[in-house]
Amino acid sequence: MLSRQKGAILVLSGPSGAGKSTIISAASDEIGEYYFSISTTTRAPRMGEKEGRDYFFVTKESFEEDIKAGNFLEYAEVHGNYYGTSLKPVNEALQAGKLVIFDIDVQGHRLVRAKMNDITTSAFITPPTLSELENRLRARCTDQEDVILKRLENAKDEIGAVSEYDFIIINDSVEEAAEEFVIVAKAARLKYSKETEDQFIEKWLQ
Amino acid sequence: MLSRQKGAILVLSGPSGAGKSTIISAASDEIGEYYFSISTTTRAPRMGEKEGRDYFFVTKESFEEDIKAGNFLEYAEVHGNYYGTSLKPVNEALQAGKLVIFDIDVQGHRLVRAKMNDITTSAFITPPTLSELENRLRARCTDQEDVILKRLENAKDEIGAVSEYDFIIINDSVEEAAEEFVIVAKAARLKYSKETEDQFIEKWLQ
Repeated sequence: MLSRQKGAILVLSGPSGAGKSTIISAASDEIGEYYFSISTTTRAPRMGEKEGRDYFFVTKESFEEDIKAGNFLEYAEVHGNYYGTSLKPVNEALQAGKLVIFDIDVQGHRLVRAKMNDITTSAFITPPTLSELENRLRARCTDQEDVILKRLENAKDEIGAVSEYDFIIINDSVEEAAEEFVIVAKAARLKYSKETEDQFIEKWLQ
Repeated sequence: MLSRQKGAILVLSGPSGAGKSTIISAASDEIGEYYFSISTTTRAPRMGEKEGRDYFFVTKESFEEDIKAGNFLEYAEVHGNYYGTSLKPVNEALQAGKLVIFDIDVQGHRLVRAKMNDITTSAFITPPTLSELENRLRARCTDQEDVILKRLENAKDEIGAVSEYDFIIINDSVEEAAEEFVIVAKAARLKYSKETEDQFIEKWLQ
């Protein structure tokens, strides 16, 4: 294995209700140390959401200053609220050689790819069908009807982008999905940055 | 996991002497059933080489007919001899859902990518340095000086192409290299063809 200073990135996308957190939890013993990237948002915290666990909650002014300063790896404005990933903690985790896991949408994936393609692996995690997604969203009884309908609309929009991802993980059985996730996470760690590769070639030829 | 009719492709490249066969052997218990693609060539068998194990040996006329008939997935002419991969056994193995492993050069990798990019994963396997490669080639005492020098020249030409590969496996310790190979082979099996993905999306939305 190449000795390296830098870690790697694993982007996870997929509809809310796909079971991303459940899969990560089920796999966490086997995937080694990772840093789960927390997004920053200007929207108000919802019931039960916790600062620094679900999001970093900031003001619109503060977010816009960070945009100007180039402090975001990716960000987007959705329904009047900003959502983004701060570069600093990501870079710190990468420097520490960690696998950085993102739970972001299709658009966020494109932006991460554009900036850090060489060390990025991505997986789209989804229930087997749209109607199964609907069943799961209704079964958890946490979302109101309008939120459920919006999630289903988003999911329909996003499913067409699966081919942009390195892997698709169909969460039919959590056990199998977690097994596939372990493989994907281990493979993600084997990605080298262009810089590391160039150094390797130089040393190789000496 | 997606149900599918078709397998996936794993292309291995890297200098002769990198230890590709040793690594595959060391990993074979863990990577499941695979089909190792045998190349077809017009060059004469060397001492110890066996028809159907090392190569399929054919005449120049027969090879050129197969080129015209579009029977090769990839082929090249090197020093007056043809080398190529017949499509038929590859397609049969893919239809049977197997992982098809290729040991081909940088040029062959490009041609496979061009035709079957969606189901292809690739790894470049190499000793840690050029001088270590030279040591290994000399230690095995099977090649004459001119062959060794040609292999080293080829290796120098090919190492610059590592960034075209999904993974680089540095064969420093066989054990570690085999562990990485297992991850790469398992990840390769999770690749879906564009066709499978399109069918999935269609079914997903119903």
